[in-house]
Amino acid sequence: MRDTPITPTTTAAKATTTTSDSKDVRDQKILTGDRATGQLHLGHYVGSLKQRVELQHLNQQTILVADMQGLTDNGNTPSKVADNILNVVADYLAVGIDPAKTTICLQSGVPALSELTMYYANLVSIARLERNPTVKSEIQGKNFGRSIPAGFLTYPISQAADITAFQAQLVPVGDDQLPMLEQTNEIVRKVNALANREVLRECQPLLSNISRLPSADGKSKMSKSLGNVITLDASDKTISQAVKAMYTDPNHLTVDQPGQIEGNVVFTYLDAFHPDADYVAQLKDHYQRGGLGDGKTKQILTDCLQTLISPIRARRQALIADKGYLIEVLKKGTEQAKQESQQALDNVKAAFGLNLL
Amino acid sequence: MRDTPITPTTTAAKATTTTSDSKDVRDQKILTGDRATGQLHLGHYVGSLKQRVELQHLNQQTILVADMQGLTDNGNTPSKVADNILNVVADYLAVGIDPAKTTICLQSGVPALSELTMYYANLVSIARLERNPTVKSEIQGKNFGRSIPAGFLTYPISQAADITAFQAQLVPVGDDQLPMLEQTNEIVRKVNALANREVLRECQPLLSNISRLPSADGKSKMSKSLGNVITLDASDKTISQAVKAMYTDPNHLTVDQPGQIEGNVVFTYLDAFHPDADYVAQLKDHYQRGGLGDGKTKQILTDCLQTLISPIRARRQALIADKGYLIEVLKKGTEQAKQESQQALDNVKAAFGLNLL
Repeated sequence: MRDTPITPTTTAAKATTTTSDSKDVRDQKILTGDRATGQLHLGHYVGSLKQRVELQHLNQQTILVADMQGLTDNGNTPSKVADNILNVVADYLAVGIDPAKTTICLQSGVPALSELTMYYANLVSIARLERNPTVKSEIQGKNFGRSIPAGFLTYPISQAADITAFQAQLVPVGDDQLPMLEQTNEIVRKVNALANREVLRECQPLLSNISRLPSADGKSKMSKSLGNVITLDASDKTISQAVKAMYTDPNHLTVDQPGQIEGNVVFTYLDAFHPDADYVAQLKDHYQRGGLGDGKTKQILTDCLQTLISPIRARRQALIADKGYLIEVLKKGTEQAKQESQQALDNVKAAFGLNLL
Repeated sequence: MRDTPITPTTTAAKATTTTSDSKDVRDQKILTGDRATGQLHLGHYVGSLKQRVELQHLNQQTILVADMQGLTDNGNTPSKVADNILNVVADYLAVGIDPAKTTICLQSGVPALSELTMYYANLVSIARLERNPTVKSEIQGKNFGRSIPAGFLTYPISQAADITAFQAQLVPVGDDQLPMLEQTNEIVRKVNALANREVLRECQPLLSNISRLPSADGKSKMSKSLGNVITLDASDKTISQAVKAMYTDPNHLTVDQPGQIEGNVVFTYLDAFHPDADYVAQLKDHYQRGGLGDGKTKQILTDCLQTLISPIRARRQALIADKGYLIEVLKKGTEQAKQESQQALDNVKAAFGLNLL
């Protein structure tokens, strides 16, 4: 199953520069979001949620709960999307995304996103969509062939609608998602050329020095359906078991032996999640010269993740028990988004000359 | 250029049963419309407009001015669409379509049409779209190849949205458009299967015993861009010239000779437009046995068309001079259509489980 969000939320910090990058960003319109196809997990936390909590203080951030995009490969199993909308909202609020600072909206509640998609679809060829490297590899991964749903092949157009509807300047992405922004900016240039003025503005990626957080076995992609993710409401026991099962250095047979940290998932997670980078550096040295066992490093990681998740889990449990509140939050954000997106839609319609009524 | 409307408006009566068919239809929701890519002409008049004037008395008829569909092959020349919206509305009113009886609405003014298209796009594969015989032949005709705009390949999905948004039971079409209704009904069945109840109803074609009205040369399709159409505001002189240029029987060299009526465009038009079928039958007999010249038959057709068009032209000229009124009519109809389509959208969203807000 595709767990690709509209931003690469399953990415992890390679270095600790991710968050400091975010802190330098201010006064920008930012659009980000997630496909509503499952609970969010640690990959999302480190790849995007943490950054969003920071970005919301100095920027105008909109987060899209992308239910319609979730349908593009779940057309016949829509409950996978419907059942996860409030899960995603609860995850947002539990990690500290503040609806008073960030507009959290539901994609299907904002008609302008569909309307813009329809206009843009006239400016993008099927060949161009098929050349999109991100979509190409996803199609291959799914063995869609020509039976690919029309909504799936065209979802980069829908993403362009999402981004431009909010006149976003910055879109947090991993480099695997850059082709999506190229497609968006191509559309922007075409609309501007039609109108012979700047109707829409091009967006820029907010790239962090990040790479995808590996799954516990170090081999596959993190995926809820593969059962190899740690969700944001994971119990202490689940966390402990997941860490125990993590891939380390298969040649590190005794504590005394020097161990490898490359490809060692425990250290990748420590890099991503441990608050004390100096301490992690010391652990790495120790592990590499020998004398530090996997049991010990796994215990450190378990403690670290349990400490991180414990308060998030508590808040999340309280939130998910109050669905009325979650709906209220989503309703309010969606109403704001409806109003905000109307301007871009009006401008695009005018560019096509369709502003008669 | 594609002049295919969302109903086959460039069709002509082969027999006089077209209108009597329409008179038997009652208490039906009917959806029809035209791409707003040019003034309507005699092909539209006999193929659909005349029928609509009759249908509106006993049915709930919605006519869509399909500006967004017009963009699907005019993405880079949108003024061709924008400039023709009011032309089409003026044509409707000039022939007697009554906005008090028929909802005349602008496609781009009804967001539910775009939204439904997005949902349905997840239920239709690219392969299925490419197999659509109507689209296939249009793609070939345009030499699109893979550079076909995404909006064009997917326009059958958008048509399904148009039809189902108004819960249309009957869609007037020529048999070349039947694949469009098949596509619509496939989507209807998929949505109903998702919800396990009848969310949408299948539509039926309102087929008349009609064939496409030929252009004056008898060879090509009628097309505004080919300059071989008689528009509904054609002057007496234009009509007279167009009829003079019509293809008859090339072997009918003297008046005395017997003439052929098969492929004789003058007789095809007389069949389609002359109010007195018995008289036309007598003319045919006379022509076939010899003694009736093309000058005479052309004069009869010219008189007939001038009589038909003269009052339409006068009303049309008055209407097009009052753009404010045309906009008012379109605005009111579009507002009605917005309200009416909301129900189908709500139902479809519920079928996908996306009725949270």
